[in-house]
Amino acid sequence: MDPSVNANANGLAQTLDGPTNPMVTPLLTDLYQFTMAYAYWKAGKHLEQAVFDLFFRKNPFGGEYTIFAGLEECIQFIANFKFKDEEIAFLRTALPATCEDDFFEYLRGIDCSDVEVHAISEGSVVFPKIPLLRVQGPIAVVQLLETPFVNLVNYASLVATNAARHRFVAGKSKNLLEFGLRRAQGPDGGISASKYCYIGGFDASSNVAAGRLFGIPLRGTHSHAFVSSFMSPDEIVEKALRSSDGSVTCEDFVSLVQSWLNKIQWSNSFRGIFGETNQSELAAFTSYALAFPTNFLALVDTYDVMRSGVPNFSAVALALSDLGYKAAGIRLDSGDLAYLSIESRKFFCAIEKEFGVIGFGKMTITASNDLNEETLDALNKQGHEVDAFGIGTYLVTCYAQAALGCVFKLVEINNQPRIKLSEDVSKVSIPCKKRCYRLFGREGYPLVDIMTGENEPPPKVAERILCRHPFNESKRAYVVPQCVEELLKCYWPGSSDKRREELPPLKKIRERCIQQLSQMRPDHMRRLNPTPYKVSVSAKLYDFIHFLWLNEAPVGELQ
Amino acid sequence: MDPSVNANANGLAQTLDGPTNPMVTPLLTDLYQFTMAYAYWKAGKHLEQAVFDLFFRKNPFGGEYTIFAGLEECIQFIANFKFKDEEIAFLRTALPATCEDDFFEYLRGIDCSDVEVHAISEGSVVFPKIPLLRVQGPIAVVQLLETPFVNLVNYASLVATNAARHRFVAGKSKNLLEFGLRRAQGPDGGISASKYCYIGGFDASSNVAAGRLFGIPLRGTHSHAFVSSFMSPDEIVEKALRSSDGSVTCEDFVSLVQSWLNKIQWSNSFRGIFGETNQSELAAFTSYALAFPTNFLALVDTYDVMRSGVPNFSAVALALSDLGYKAAGIRLDSGDLAYLSIESRKFFCAIEKEFGVIGFGKMTITASNDLNEETLDALNKQGHEVDAFGIGTYLVTCYAQAALGCVFKLVEINNQPRIKLSEDVSKVSIPCKKRCYRLFGREGYPLVDIMTGENEPPPKVAERILCRHPFNESKRAYVVPQCVEELLKCYWPGSSDKRREELPPLKKIRERCIQQLSQMRPDHMRRLNPTPYKVSVSAKLYDFIHFLWLNEAPVGELQ
Repeated sequence: MDPSVNANANGLAQTLDGPTNPMVTPLLTDLYQFTMAYAYWKAGKHLEQAVFDLFFRKNPFGGEYTIFAGLEECIQFIANFKFKDEEIAFLRTALPATCEDDFFEYLRGIDCSDVEVHAISEGSVVFPKIPLLRVQGPIAVVQLLETPFVNLVNYASLVATNAARHRFVAGKSKNLLEFGLRRAQGPDGGISASKYCYIGGFDASSNVAAGRLFGIPLRGTHSHAFVSSFMSPDEIVEKALRSSDGSVTCEDFVSLVQSWLNKIQWSNSFRGIFGETNQSELAAFTSYALAFPTNFLALVDTYDVMRSGVPNFSAVALALSDLGYKAAGIRLDSGDLAYLSIESRKFFCAIEKEFGVIGFGKMTITASNDLNEETLDALNKQGHEVDAFGIGTYLVTCYAQAALGCVFKLVEINNQPRIKLSEDVSKVSIPCKKRCYRLFGREGYPLVDIMTGENEPPPKVAERILCRHPFNESKRAYVVPQCVEELLKCYWPGSSDKRREELPPLKKIRERCIQQLSQMRPDHMRRLNPTPYKVSVSAKLYDFIHFLWLNEAPVGELQ
Repeated sequence: MDPSVNANANGLAQTLDGPTNPMVTPLLTDLYQFTMAYAYWKAGKHLEQAVFDLFFRKNPFGGEYTIFAGLEECIQFIANFKFKDEEIAFLRTALPATCEDDFFEYLRGIDCSDVEVHAISEGSVVFPKIPLLRVQGPIAVVQLLETPFVNLVNYASLVATNAARHRFVAGKSKNLLEFGLRRAQGPDGGISASKYCYIGGFDASSNVAAGRLFGIPLRGTHSHAFVSSFMSPDEIVEKALRSSDGSVTCEDFVSLVQSWLNKIQWSNSFRGIFGETNQSELAAFTSYALAFPTNFLALVDTYDVMRSGVPNFSAVALALSDLGYKAAGIRLDSGDLAYLSIESRKFFCAIEKEFGVIGFGKMTITASNDLNEETLDALNKQGHEVDAFGIGTYLVTCYAQAALGCVFKLVEINNQPRIKLSEDVSKVSIPCKKRCYRLFGREGYPLVDIMTGENEPPPKVAERILCRHPFNESKRAYVVPQCVEELLKCYWPGSSDKRREELPPLKKIRERCIQQLSQMRPDHMRRLNPTPYKVSVSAKLYDFIHFLWLNEAPVGELQ
């Protein structure tokens, strides 16, 4: 398979030719899924119909919302789920020698054609306890899917949520660039980060492989090494640059830059502001402009932003302007970004005024040094002139909270509801094969998510329904929904005759995410003390949960 | 390529057939590496010989040491570095349309045959500022390697260090199992975690794919879902179990278990201690034992550890013992692990005494609920009876610090040393193509690492040498080494005639790591306020750094 045709951001329909990462195979699971499969098989239970819910218990990053991502990879995985002979051979060595041959024959035969997967659409805003995926099928097979599904959803949802939170703080008007590949947790961590940050609302990535795989816009300029690899403008041999319209050729662009640097230095606005600028930097900028006259964006902090980088950049940009080119801007990668962006903006505005170059003051300023939600927020509070943020480490490694705790719990077997108890109430699972709905209020905001038993009548628009907290008796509310959306859709019908929901292209997933975020009531979204969004169960499901709970829990004895 | 033959833990020599993850291609890099390559090419500088150092600035997790890992993947990457036609075609679309055709022809032709890589051996204990890799070659090519190298080293070294720290706290006698696949940052995050945790001193993993790829021992039992998938022992149809020596068959193992449960319940030691145990759990344990009589290990906390799980387990284990099998133990996955492990141990010892089953008191107890360095330390302080720890989320996502900040800095071009300045002294890079040595003291401990210029004479055993802090004038010490080890070895000779250092198999890397850790002076290793290990430069290199620094830094003007 050529992974390049696996997904496409430009709107083509998805083909089901496998997960992006070829390492996602049926062996990418925990050993105990195989020992359990064997024990089920040995007990003759392996074909029993089981229903598992995949959900998380707590929103990440101290927030009250999560973006669901990773679904497409899960579906790509099960659509191609099949053991290869060499994988079976390996499993024979990994399991105890007492395991019977027929079990491996059974494994050789299985696929996911009798597994049914319902899921919330990828890119949706989601909340704790509500199943993101509901997986039904023969217990031995579904159990094997647990680890890869949880792996594929956990990080994807976490990093998409992190991206959405960064977008929220940065504001809609800023360009957000994902620059995390080098600091990501492994090569796939980097590629996944680029994909899911795009879903979460980033505009572009530096990761070329992700650009190719997913059609994500790519951005990037040059590094400090590029600047320090030059010594002085004397080493530039090829000095000619044709004007943007092709009408004239400047034979010595290096001298043109130098003359602009002199003009700036001795102009009324700038006299005495800076002295001799760094010559390796000037050479590097000039060379970069010669290579990319239409895309000249320079990293200006290798030596000194205001005394060298910005003046050198401006000289090159003005020389380009003489030839009809418009420079793209600067990047700041260290120091006080608020202060430096403001000073750079003043410098550019002064250039515009002094030399009458229209638009020079609007030069794009990109900032990129160890940024995260907090630093973006602090920059906003200080005031700054940054137009675009390049964000890496803290974004892609989810430094503030490196894992989302998705779990995969058995909720029904052979039509018998099952509950997982725990001394910690928040860890008790909600039994039964369920349906889930989002109820919207008069103002268009989502009000509450509600889970019901599979066969209960759905909530109806304009009809009052009681929504109960699943575990807290006293927390309940009547809701009259203005709109009802069923959350779980059939993304893999298995042997049923349900229609398979199409996997949308990446851009559509991103649009859904941005649209749903914009629809949330603002108090759920704020960074400080957000209001929890309510997640509930129907009255009938509530009663059933507590009946089962009492039934399963041992009665204590006080001594 | 079949990735299964890529690496081998059992001692076979490495073949250079590519990185473990097929997604690691020359496109797995930042776009700016290509824009810079184009600008170098356009300026005719692309063949200039550059030397880059890959290093980190600060040890992770508040510690004073780091484990270097990821080297093999870097070498596998460059050994196979070559652009495919479709990759070149993609790059044409990703770069500005003004880029000249000849550049893409140039890209098509490049490989790493004229790149030279020196590196510290994988699995070594390493320290800030010392280059882990020194990469020399044509600047355009070496620049393209920056992002993949940093990506491949950063997480690998971080998670190996995290594993080593967990091993340090757990102590040598405990079994450490990596259970992180489901919470890892993507599929490759999971596979890398398993590999590098093994290097850092873990004993086994639950990750089957990693077991296959790297020959890492696999461990795993069953989950809570397995327990709750059963209703009662009545549903067990196939009840016969042959004895371990094959001499007799117990036709009704289910009844044998039940009779043992009754015996325990009404024995002198246990009377009144527990009542009716959970019947789904009893059925699940019995079934699991029927499937794995030689490897019976049960998760005992689905309902209630002391009132259900441990008694049920003991009944099954005693029934197995009647047939000559020795149960493997229990796993605790919730609650107060110190308390529960101690109570379980008491229970097992009482069984041993009551029923005369020799060794029953030594039953293995595994614990696995959200463990990390701190909880291991707290368990040690409280006292516990755990023999093995299964560690997931906090280990593999490096929750305590989700990224290691490795960087890749230009230190020389065309034999001209280069320095990267910064207002933050800790970010100033150490210029020059360097050699690095570890100097050992009388007691066998490493004393100090020292960097020298490429052509300086090496430090000699028993000869006094001055070691200087690279940036702090007053910090310096004379050292008389008892042993001198050159750290950087040639792992990829490029076009030189140097001998290529063999890539050792995984087990050897793990042994090196464990051996080097055991050799460190204990005060560098302690968790609380460890002593920093000293990293220094020769007197000559010190002088040169400061000469360059003064030369490059702009002179300020106070106004």
